[in-house]
Amino acid sequence: MIVAMQDRATEEEIQAVVERMIEVGFNVHRTTGTVQTILAGVGTPGPFDHKDFEVFSGVAEVIRISSPYKLAGRSFRPEGTIVRFPNGVTVGGNEVAVMAGPCSVESREQIFAAAHFVKAGGAKFLRGGAFKPRSSPYSFQGMGLAGLELLREVGDATGLLIISEVMEISQIELMMPYVDVFQVGARNMQNFNLLREIGQVRKPVLLKRGIAATIEELLLSAEYILSGGNYDVMLCERGIRTFETYTRNTMDISAIPVVKKLSHLPILGDPSHGVGLRDKVPAMARATVAAGGDGLLMEVHPNPDKALSDGAQSLFPEQFAKLMDELRVIASAVGRSIR
Amino acid sequence: MIVAMQDRATEEEIQAVVERMIEVGFNVHRTTGTVQTILAGVGTPGPFDHKDFEVFSGVAEVIRISSPYKLAGRSFRPEGTIVRFPNGVTVGGNEVAVMAGPCSVESREQIFAAAHFVKAGGAKFLRGGAFKPRSSPYSFQGMGLAGLELLREVGDATGLLIISEVMEISQIELMMPYVDVFQVGARNMQNFNLLREIGQVRKPVLLKRGIAATIEELLLSAEYILSGGNYDVMLCERGIRTFETYTRNTMDISAIPVVKKLSHLPILGDPSHGVGLRDKVPAMARATVAAGGDGLLMEVHPNPDKALSDGAQSLFPEQFAKLMDELRVIASAVGRSIR
Amino acid sequence: MIVAMQDRATEEEIQAVVERMIEVGFNVHRTTGTVQTILAGVGTPGPFDHKDFEVFSGVAEVIRISSPYKLAGRSFRPEGTIVRFPNGVTVGGNEVAVMAGPCSVESREQIFAAAHFVKAGGAKFLRGGAFKPRSSPYSFQGMGLAGLELLREVGDATGLLIISEVMEISQIELMMPYVDVFQVGARNMQNFNLLREIGQVRKPVLLKRGIAATIEELLLSAEYILSGGNYDVMLCERGIRTFETYTRNTMDISAIPVVKKLSHLPILGDPSHGVGLRDKVPAMARATVAAGGDGLLMEVHPNPDKALSDGAQSLFPEQFAKLMDELRVIASAVGRSIR
Amino acid sequence: MIVAMQDRATEEEIQAVVERMIEVGFNVHRTTGTVQTILAGVGTPGPFDHKDFEVFSGVAEVIRISSPYKLAGRSFRPEGTIVRFPNGVTVGGNEVAVMAGPCSVESREQIFAAAHFVKAGGAKFLRGGAFKPRSSPYSFQGMGLAGLELLREVGDATGLLIISEVMEISQIELMMPYVDVFQVGARNMQNFNLLREIGQVRKPVLLKRGIAATIEELLLSAEYILSGGNYDVMLCERGIRTFETYTRNTMDISAIPVVKKLSHLPILGDPSHGVGLRDKVPAMARATVAAGGDGLLMEVHPNPDKALSDGAQSLFPEQFAKLMDELRVIASAVGRSIR
Repeated sequence: MIVAMQDRATEEEIQAVVERMIEVGFNVHRTTGTVQTILAGVGTPGPFDHKDFEVFSGVAEVIRISSPYKLAGRSFRPEGTIVRFPNGVTVGGNEVAVMAGPCSVESREQIFAAAHFVKAGGAKFLRGGAFKPRSSPYSFQGMGLAGLELLREVGDATGLLIISEVMEISQIELMMPYVDVFQVGARNMQNFNLLREIGQVRKPVLLKRGIAATIEELLLSAEYILSGGNYDVMLCERGIRTFETYTRNTMDISAIPVVKKLSHLPILGDPSHGVGLRDKVPAMARATVAAGGDGLLMEVHPNPDKALSDGAQSLFPEQFAKLMDELRVIASAVGRSIR
Repeated sequence: MIVAMQDRATEEEIQAVVERMIEVGFNVHRTTGTVQTILAGVGTPGPFDHKDFEVFSGVAEVIRISSPYKLAGRSFRPEGTIVRFPNGVTVGGNEVAVMAGPCSVESREQIFAAAHFVKAGGAKFLRGGAFKPRSSPYSFQGMGLAGLELLREVGDATGLLIISEVMEISQIELMMPYVDVFQVGARNMQNFNLLREIGQVRKPVLLKRGIAATIEELLLSAEYILSGGNYDVMLCERGIRTFETYTRNTMDISAIPVVKKLSHLPILGDPSHGVGLRDKVPAMARATVAAGGDGLLMEVHPNPDKALSDGAQSLFPEQFAKLMDELRVIASAVGRSIR
Repeated sequence: MIVAMQDRATEEEIQAVVERMIEVGFNVHRTTGTVQTILAGVGTPGPFDHKDFEVFSGVAEVIRISSPYKLAGRSFRPEGTIVRFPNGVTVGGNEVAVMAGPCSVESREQIFAAAHFVKAGGAKFLRGGAFKPRSSPYSFQGMGLAGLELLREVGDATGLLIISEVMEISQIELMMPYVDVFQVGARNMQNFNLLREIGQVRKPVLLKRGIAATIEELLLSAEYILSGGNYDVMLCERGIRTFETYTRNTMDISAIPVVKKLSHLPILGDPSHGVGLRDKVPAMARATVAAGGDGLLMEVHPNPDKALSDGAQSLFPEQFAKLMDELRVIASAVGRSIR
Repeated sequence: MIVAMQDRATEEEIQAVVERMIEVGFNVHRTTGTVQTILAGVGTPGPFDHKDFEVFSGVAEVIRISSPYKLAGRSFRPEGTIVRFPNGVTVGGNEVAVMAGPCSVESREQIFAAAHFVKAGGAKFLRGGAFKPRSSPYSFQGMGLAGLELLREVGDATGLLIISEVMEISQIELMMPYVDVFQVGARNMQNFNLLREIGQVRKPVLLKRGIAATIEELLLSAEYILSGGNYDVMLCERGIRTFETYTRNTMDISAIPVVKKLSHLPILGDPSHGVGLRDKVPAMARATVAAGGDGLLMEVHPNPDKALSDGAQSLFPEQFAKLMDELRVIASAVGRSIR
C-alpha cells in the first residue's frame, strides 16, 4: 500500500498515518520530497480496509498495490490452468471448448434434438437450465429436477458433458449427480456464501462475470472458490452494463486478454447474453475466439421461435453449424483448434 | 407493445408478425403509412418475451408499452404507501425517517453506545449488520445470531426499531424474532428466490437498488415482494456504478423524484454506501432530503477509527448530531419534518 | 509516480525501469520487499506519459501520485476562489448564485419576459443561448449575433449579468462586448484549443463537465484556462452518462463535495440538463444547494410549451418562483444565502 | 412517434396531446384499449422535440419510431457504401483496410521508417498526427504543417494513402493538399460546426465514435457530414467509457455488427485507443476483423519506447508483421481478404 500525503501535510499528520500503518502490520518506508511525502507499506499486513487511510487528516491518496487475490493471480500458476474432464476433454489447453444448448430444458424431445446438432457441430459440452432466474415473477421458471434428469440422460447417451446453473446453496447437493460443470450466473457472482460452498465441491465451476463487476472483482470471486480447494474454475465474460442501449449489454472482449495476463484461469465468452440478439451472436463468438478466449458458451435451440425462454438470442441449428466452421479457421489463426 | 416495421418490409413479413402477436394474446391495430407500417398490440397477452419480435424479418423496432410492474406502479395506489410501525413511527408520510447505526454489530458496548447517540439525534431506527457480505474472503464476516440478540436487546431498551440485512432464505426465520425491518442488500436485489420468500413475510422490507440496476429493475424486484402479499416495501438508492472513480459509486439522487413519479412506494437514500467516504456523507444526506427522499439509511459509529468494517464511511457522533440539525431545516423547506 | 514490480521481476527488469525513471527526471527510491519491489519516483520530471512504464517487462502496476493539475488544486488557493463581478455580485462566496433563463434567445419579447421573472425570483444572472449546438442537423440553430444584442440590451436594462455559450474560437471576440460570463459547454470541455484561447480572455468562464468526463478531467480542463492567466473559472456539474435511461443523464451531485475538497474553484449545478425533464428539475436544484453547490444554472421560459428548444426541461415562471423560496431555506441550512 | 397515455388519462388530456401532434405535422391514429390509450403519429412532421410530449399531463411514455438519421440508414443504400480511392484501394468492399502508423509525426526519419514496415505488412494507409489534442496543457502538441508535408512526401514516395486528424475548421483548407482522408477524432464527434464543414469537402472522412456516444449518436453525426453532400464517410469504433478501469476504454466490438445492420457505412476499429496498452492490441485487432469490421486503424512505431506520444499503445514493427499474418487467416474465415 502507498499513502501519498497532501503537499502541506504536517509532521504530526504524517506520524499518525505511519503509526496506523505499523499497527495493521506494515513495514513503512518513507520518502520525503521537497513538496510531498510518500509512505510505502510493505510486508504482509493482517486484514484491514485501505479506505480507512483515506480519511486520515493530511492524506491525498491511498493506493493498494498488491492484488487482493492470491490464488487467482497468474503468478500462482504461471503456466496456466487446464481443467481436465474424465473423458479427456480439456478447457484452457490447445482446444477451444464449445458449450452449447438451449437456455432452458423444455422437454425430452427438445433437449435430445439440441444435443444432437450441438454434438454434430463439434461442441463437447451441452448447456441447459433447470432452474431459471427471471427478472419478472410472471415468466417460465424452469423444469427443476426433471430437467436435470433429462440432461444427465442425454449426456450419457451422447457423451456430451453437462453444464447447468446452480442458483443457491440448497441446489448444490441436488445437482451433484447430474452435472459435470456447475455454472454460477452473473447475478450470483458476488453471492459469497454460494461461492464458499462451491469451493468445497470437487467439480469444475464456470463463474460468470456480473454485469457491473470489474475484472478485479471477478478474480476476487474466483478466489473465494479457489480458497475452498476447488481449483477447477473457469471464468466467463458475458457483457457489462454500459450506456449503450442497442445491445442488451456490452460484451467486453478486452477482458479476455486482460484475464489472460492477470490470472492463470481459463476465460470463455458468452456471446448470447453478451449481445442478446441472435443476429449479432456469430460475430461476437468469432471475436471471442480471435481474441484468445478458451471457449464459448452459447444458446442454440432446435426451434428458437418456439423457445420458452431466450428464443431471440438462440441460434438456429444451421447458423450454429456455419459458425463452427468459421471458428475452426479463426482458432487456427491463434494457434488453437476445435476438433 | 408496438412493433415498427422496416421501411421496406413486405406484406408477408408484416403478416407473420401480426399472426404471432395474435398468438401471444394481443389485439392488433395496424397503421399503414406511406413508408412505414406500425403494429400496436393492445389487451392483456399471456407471458412472452418481447425480444422474440425483434428477430422477426422486416422488424425495425419493438417497444414495450405497459410497464412490466403492476403492483409497484403509482397507479396501483396513487395516494402513496405509508409503512406504519406498531410504535406509531411511519415511513412515507410527513416524517423523514432516519435509520442509523454501525455497519456491523461488534460488541454490546459498541451497539449500545451507537443506539444512544443515534436516538439522541432523532433517528427512529437502529441499523446494524449481523451477517456481512464481504468481497474479500479474508475479511470480518459478522457476529451472526449473537449480533441479532444484541440488536433486539438494545431496540427494546431504547424504543428504536431494528433494521438488519437478510442475506439468504435460511436467515429469514432466524431473524424474524429480532428485527423490525428486513433489509435486502444491493447484491441481492435480483435474488428472486429470496425476494419471493420475503414476499411471504409480514414484516416491512427495505429493498436496496443494485449498483447496476435501472430504476425499472428496482421496481420489478419490488413487484416480486408485493406479489407475495407483503405490501410494506421501502426502496433505497445507494449508488450506481459509473466511470467516475473518485467516489465508490455515483449516488443517483434523481432516482428519488423518478421513483416518486413512477411508484407509490417510499424511497430512501443511503449516502454512506452512495459515496463511501465519511467527509462526503453529510452533503449527500442533505441532498437526499432536499430532493424529496422519505428517509435516510446511514452508517455511524461511536468510534469509526476502530470499526471492524466500513469505518471510513461511518460518521462520528458529533457529525451525526450536526447533520440532523441541518436536515431538520431542509425537511421544512420541502414540507416535511424530522421530530 | 509509483511503479510496483511483479512478484517475480528480475533485477534486470527492475534496473531498466529505474533507468527510464531517472531519464525522465525522477529521483528514485527503491523499496525491496520479500516478494515485491516498489519504486517511488519523486521530484519534478519533465513531461512524459506514465503509461510508458506500464509496458515495461516485469511491471505490475504504475500509479501516478501527484495530481496532474496544479493551478486548479485546492492547495494552490486553500481559502477558495471567489469570482467577483463589477456590480458586487460574487460566485463562490456566501451567496448562492442563480443563473436562469431560456435555452435559446428567441425574440425580444421572450427574453425580456424571462429576464423580468428571473430577476423577481432573485437570480443575478440571465442565461440564454445565441449559438446552439444541436445533435440533429435539422433543428433550430440559434439567433446568433442578434441574440447577443438582445441579451446585452436586457442585461443593461435589468442589471442582470449575462452568461452565454461560446462554441468556437472565432466567437470569442464576437461575444466579448455582449456577455459577462463565457459558458463552455459539456461537448467542448476537452476542446483544448478553445480552452487555451479562453485562458487569454479576462472575463469569467463557466466550464461545464462533459458527460463522459471524470472530475479529474474537469479539473485538468480548468487547468488549461487557468494556465493562460484567466483565474475566474467556475465549474458546473450537469450530468454524466450512465446506464440509467429514465433520466437523460445522471446528475452526479457527489461531484460537488468532491470538487470542494480537490479544488478551490466554485462549483455550480445545472439540473435542467442534469435530468432533462421539468418535473425533476426542482428536486435536483434543491439537492445541489443542499450538497453545498455555489450556484445553479437553470432553464426557465415564459412559455415552455412554445419554446424553440429544450422546452421540456424549462421551468414555468411560477415553478421558478416557488423553487427560489425553497432554495432560500435550504441555503440557510448550509450557512449560505440567496438574497 | 408513439405516445402511450397513462392508465387513468382523461379524454381532455388525450385530446390535448392529439392536437399538439397534429400541430407539429403528424397524422394521428388512436388505439383505445380497456385500460390504456395509444396514439401513433405517422407522416413526416416538421422539426420538433419529442421530449415536449413527455411533459404533457397524462402521458406515460413517448417513443420515437423512425430513426432520426435518414442518409446514414441502411435503407438509404442497402447494398452498402464502398469508399473508393484513386489508386484502386477500397474501404467497405471485400478488402479489409489497414491504416497504421505512429500517433504523431515526429521526424522525417521516423515517419519514413514507419511507412516502410507498415507497407511491408500490407497496410494501404499511413496514419500520423500533425496536430495533437492532449488532455494536459504540458504535453507535446504535434509538428503542425511540417508534419503534414512529411506525410505527403512519404505518401507519394510509397504509394500509401495518408490519413490525419483535423481538429478544427481552420485546419481543413490547410490540410486539404496533404491528406487523402480526414480523420475526425472522438472528442470532435459532436462538434457539429466542424462536421458541417467536413460535409462540404470532397474527400473521404473517417469519423470516430466519441467515448460517451451511443451508436445512434454516431450515425447522427455521420448524417451531418452526409447531408452536406460528402458521402465517403467511414465510421470507427475506438472504445467507450465504462466502469472498468483496467483498460483505458472498453472497446465495443458489438458496435461492428450493429452498425452493419443499421447503416450502409463502413465501420473500422481502432484497437490502440480501444484498449490503450500494446499487449492487448493484437487480440482486439483480431476481434475486430473476426466480428466483420471493414478495417483497422492502429498505432505502430519504429521505436515505441522513444515515441513522443502514445508509445505505450504502439506496436513494435515485428508485432505488426505477425499480427498482419494472423489477420489474413481471420479475414478468410469471414469471406474477406487482406492483400
